Formats: sequence, C-alpha cells, structure tokens
Amino acid sequence: MSDWIHPHFDYRPKRPLFLCVISNTETGKIPGVSAAGSSPRLTDYTPGADAELVELNKIITMPELPTSPEGATTPATMTRAALTLSGIPSLFVTSGLRIKPAVPYVDAGGSAGGDIRIETAVPEAAEIMERAALLGSKLATLSDCVFIGESIAGGTTTAMAVMQALGYPGKVSSSLSKNPMDLKQEIVDRALERCGASFGSMRSDPIGALAELGDPMMPCALGLMKGLRDTKVVLAGGTQMAAILTVADALDMDGDVSIATTKYIVEDKSASFMKIVEEVGQTCYVIDPGLERSAMPPIRCYAEGSAKEGVGAGGAILAASLWGVTQQQIVEETDNVLLTVELPK
Amino acid sequence: MSDWIHPHFDYRPKRPLFLCVISNTETGKIPGVSAAGSSPRLTDYTPGADAELVELNKIITMPELPTSPEGATTPATMTRAALTLSGIPSLFVTSGLRIKPAVPYVDAGGSAGGDIRIETAVPEAAEIMERAALLGSKLATLSDCVFIGESIAGGTTTAMAVMQALGYPGKVSSSLSKNPMDLKQEIVDRALERCGASFGSMRSDPIGALAELGDPMMPCALGLMKGLRDTKVVLAGGTQMAAILTVADALDMDGDVSIATTKYIVEDKSASFMKIVEEVGQTCYVIDPGLERSAMPPIRCYAEGSAKEGVGAGGAILAASLWGVTQQQIVEETDNVLLTVELPK
Repeated sequence: MSDWIHPHFDYRPKRPLFLCVISNTETGKIPGVSAAGSSPRLTDYTPGADAELVELNKIITMPELPTSPEGATTPATMTRAALTLSGIPSLFVTSGLRIKPAVPYVDAGGSAGGDIRIETAVPEAAEIMERAALLGSKLATLSDCVFIGESIAGGTTTAMAVMQALGYPGKVSSSLSKNPMDLKQEIVDRALERCGASFGSMRSDPIGALAELGDPMMPCALGLMKGLRDTKVVLAGGTQMAAILTVADALDMDGDVSIATTKYIVEDKSASFMKIVEEVGQTCYVIDPGLERSAMPPIRCYAEGSAKEGVGAGGAILAASLWGVTQQQIVEETDNVLLTVELPK
Repeated sequence: MSDWIHPHFDYRPKRPLFLCVISNTETGKIPGVSAAGSSPRLTDYTPGADAELVELNKIITMPELPTSPEGATTPATMTRAALTLSGIPSLFVTSGLRIKPAVPYVDAGGSAGGDIRIETAVPEAAEIMERAALLGSKLATLSDCVFIGESIAGGTTTAMAVMQALGYPGKVSSSLSKNPMDLKQEIVDRALERCGASFGSMRSDPIGALAELGDPMMPCALGLMKGLRDTKVVLAGGTQMAAILTVADALDMDGDVSIATTKYIVEDKSASFMKIVEEVGQTCYVIDPGLERSAMPPIRCYAEGSAKEGVGAGGAILAASLWGVTQQQIVEETDNVLLTVELPK
C-alpha cells in the first residue's frame, strides 16, 4: 500500500492498456490560453510530439521538445517514465489531429476543432464518438483495465465551455501556474452567446454541447468509454477529464469509470477539480509524483504549479504503481527521460 | 473436430485478435494484374472499402462494392461473416494507403508503393517494419493469438518479385480464375532488371528486396510478426502471405507462426502455394468455406476459382471455427452479408 496515492486502487489489472487521445483545436491557439508548446504556432505539433516522446523518447515531427512558456517540460516525460518502468503498453488515438506523429497511432477520424468563439467547434462529434465506441468495444475484449489520457493544447477552455453549457460551474485548471481564468471565461461567454446557449441550457443535449463548444478529444474519449463499458476505465487527467465525466453523466452512460490525476491539479486553488468529480459521484485517485525531488528545473517546477498534468501522466503513474513502481523510481526515471530524449538535429 | 479444416488447429485462443494490413501499390494498377476492384481506377479504394465492409457491413469511401471483373464479390464478405459469428475483434492497419477508410484504423505510416518496373517500390520499408514491430509488441501483451490478413490490389505480383529475388520460384496465385502469369513474370523480370537483381541475388538482403520489389503491406506484416514474436501468429492469406513467410525465413525471424488459407488457393494449379509453405517448413491450415452451397452467384463463383481468398478470409474462418462456428453458418452468413451490405446512395 502506497502513501503517495489516495485512495488505494483495489484492483490489479491483468492486461492494462494506456490510451491517449490527441487532438488539435483552434481554441488552443488563442494567445494566452495554453501552455502546451512555447508559442501558439507550435500547438498543432505538441500532441504528436508527446506521442513520439512516450513511444520512443524521441521528438521527430516537432522542431523542439514541448515546453511551456514557463519552462516546464511536457508531462509526457512522466508518462513515458511510468510506462517504461512498468512495461504497460500505450496506444495513441488521434481525433482531429493535424500533424500526425511518426509512431503507430489509431485514427478515429474528424477534423481539428474550430475556435468556439466563432464557429461550431466539432461538427462531426457524433461520428467521432461512434467510431471511437467501435474501437473501444474491440479493446474491451483484449484489456481488463484501460487508462485514457489526453494531449490537446487549449483543452481546458473547451472543457469549461461544455461544462457550463451542461450546468456545471466547471472552473478548470491551467497548464500555467497563473490560470488565465478571466480570458477563459470571456472565451466561454462569447462561445455560449454565439450558439444561443447559456449556463445549463444544453443539459439535455450533451452531444450538441460537444459539437458546438467542445474539442475533438472529448467525443473520442467518450466514445472509447462507451465501447469499453464492460471494462474498467480510468480517465487519466485533470479538469478536462473531469469534464468528460460530466458529459458521461449527462448522457446517462454506465460502466466502471473513475478518474486519476496528479496532486498538482487537486491543489490548484483556481480550479474546482474535486468539486466537479464529487458532483458526478465518481472515485478520484490522486497521485503525488514527488517531483520536488527532481534534479531538473523543467521537471521540478511541476511541484510549484507549472504544467501540473497532461498526457495521462497521473493515471500512467497510478497504473505503474500497481506493478510495484515506486515514487522515487518515477522521479528518477522522469529526469532520465528528459536527460536522454533525442531531439531533432 | 471439423472436417472442413485441415490439419486440426490444436490451440483455443483466449483473446484472439484479427489484424488486416491494407495498402496500395502502383504495381496493382498495371492493367490485367489484379481483380480487386472492377477497374484499375478503383484499386486505391478497395482496401479501405474492405475495412468498412468488415467493420460495419457498409461501403462508405468507395462508390461501389469491391467486385472482381469476373463478378466475384470481395472476400471481405467471408471475413465479416466469420468475425460477426464469432465476435472476434478486428483491427485494420494501414501502411502506404492512399484512401483511408471511414472506420478506426491503426496507421503504420509509409507512402503507397511504386510501380516495381520503374522505381524503388517501398523506400521506407525498414521504417514501416520498425513501426509495425512497435505496434506488434504492444498487441502481444493483450492478445494470445493474432491472425494477420491483407488487402492490397496487385499484391501477388510484388510477392512474386520479392520471392524470386530471394531465390524462391514463387508461383503466385491470382484473384482471377485465369492467372495472368505471363504478364506477372514479365513485370517481375523488368523489375529485377531495373534494380540490377536476378533470381536469388537478394537472398542476403531481404529488406532491400522488400524496398525494391515489394509493397507496403509486406514490411508492415513482417514488423507485426516481429513485435508479436512471443505470441501465436497465424498469417491469413494465400501466396502473398506465403511470401511473407519466405522473407521471415530469410531474416531468420523466430516465433510461433503458421499460415491459414482457403482451399481455393491450394487448388489453384497455376500457383505453388503449398510448395512455398513446405519450403519454409511452416504449418498450413486449409479451410473449405463451402461456398458452392451459396445462393448468391458473386459468392458461389469462389468455388469455381474466382477471387479465392483475401482480407484474411481463410484465417478469419479458421478463428471462427475455434469458437464453434460451422461451415454452414459461414456460407449462410456470407450470403447474408452480401444481401444486407449498405452501399453508397
């Protein structure tokens, strides 16, 4: 029993699988919204680079390592560390991703999400969900416990928009240590106004809310959950994944679903992660990656509130812990990933 | 014990998985080479349409049902029947595929293969193989028995070219009842000459042979086998899959690998399927789909030598038989697939 993960995860998976949904959204390019990539210009490349880092510890399709403007390196380093130490297989699922990674990935279709202030964001939401459900139903026959993470720059803003349309205050977290909450709320307000919605007005039309205000990751993650309904599912992420829980709740989806995230998300006072999770009544596993002990500033800064979570890092660490991996090993291996990652020449 | 499958398959998989590699090659567009699609114009669309048919019994991205010039409907109908009856999950893997299917698929990268008469066919062969091996190694943790089929129009000609470069006479089969063997040999001779090779001259460079003379399906299937080396693998197909065995042999790859195909391939006197398989010393399972009892001429013509095999049909039927599916059920369900398939308006 570990003292760095609460509560105790009382199931030892036989054939765990780590999925990570990667997508793009124009909403993520609004200056100031996202810390995934040092500039909006590179946001389209970040999810694919995360996939390459997790699969190969190598960045191929992006000119540099994904790093936040504050200097935090991508949480994919933690995910890679956890999966390497445990041997748990990963599979990246693309949905509306412009720049495809140079590793094998499953494509669930769709185009990149639009800017929610000015257009219907994911017109193909229902179709993406259906395709992802088909994929999930197949994976359900192979794995007994599936972790689902995400990498989509700007995803907290679309998550907030969808939650508010469904009637959840949904104060989302940020990959920046100072959460640009006023900017996010302004974007959400304009988006709601654009599609004639208001707080809670789309409660009975969750798919419509995804289509108008979401991003392509959301219907993909929900579709996977739907297809995996007879398998244990752990959503791996912060407020974006909490938003998925609220949509699943609005859709009356059943299944054995919980959520796992890093303590950096839970400690974010600007956000209401725990409140959202409690409202939908699901179990939340909180993981302390212990990164204050990292020797590398771009990793250590997580313990001071930078970046916090992403690429399913918290869930990947939880999964690894079930295979005996310790917090100390996670810290050391995360540093090692950053030390050894192969960058483009 | 069934009397329509020889020899007896003495393993009952716990978590079987059916993979199907789909690719394009310009070699397949040489008039007269392939029966996959009623005209060379549509060959790029055929593999994706096969995937849609197997996954959804629906053709979405191609204007019509893939049908040979002789009127045989795609063998994907048999594959769909077998997988539907047994509930065995399928996953399509694209490698050098131009027209992507409207179902989830795993992309292993690469560009469509070139015309082997005039250019290096698959310059990225080594890279495709590496990516597919990564995918295979993940699937190995989830499934204990993986069937690997293919759909690539024109694939028998590239298979023949690779086998001859490795020193196997490799008389390949055809999806046409009259095998255009002279045309194929003429293409192979020109291809060998183009790259300065001759019969057996590339025995010590199998990856080079794949790159010069193969198609994108070949390195992908080989990479999957490599990654799956600790899992039971059944190649599902005719002479194209036999060619994969010869390359694996030349590469000294190990693993528990066998091959399964329909009796229509084995009975093809123009080809030397059994001879190739015996030379590499692997077990071959021969399946009699019993299609002479079909009520539908585009299916019944398989029993007269049309189309014969493809989309892993024989292997899918073998897999289904292990779950108690009978020959009669296969015949009836194949007819039913053709009766109910949804075509584009």
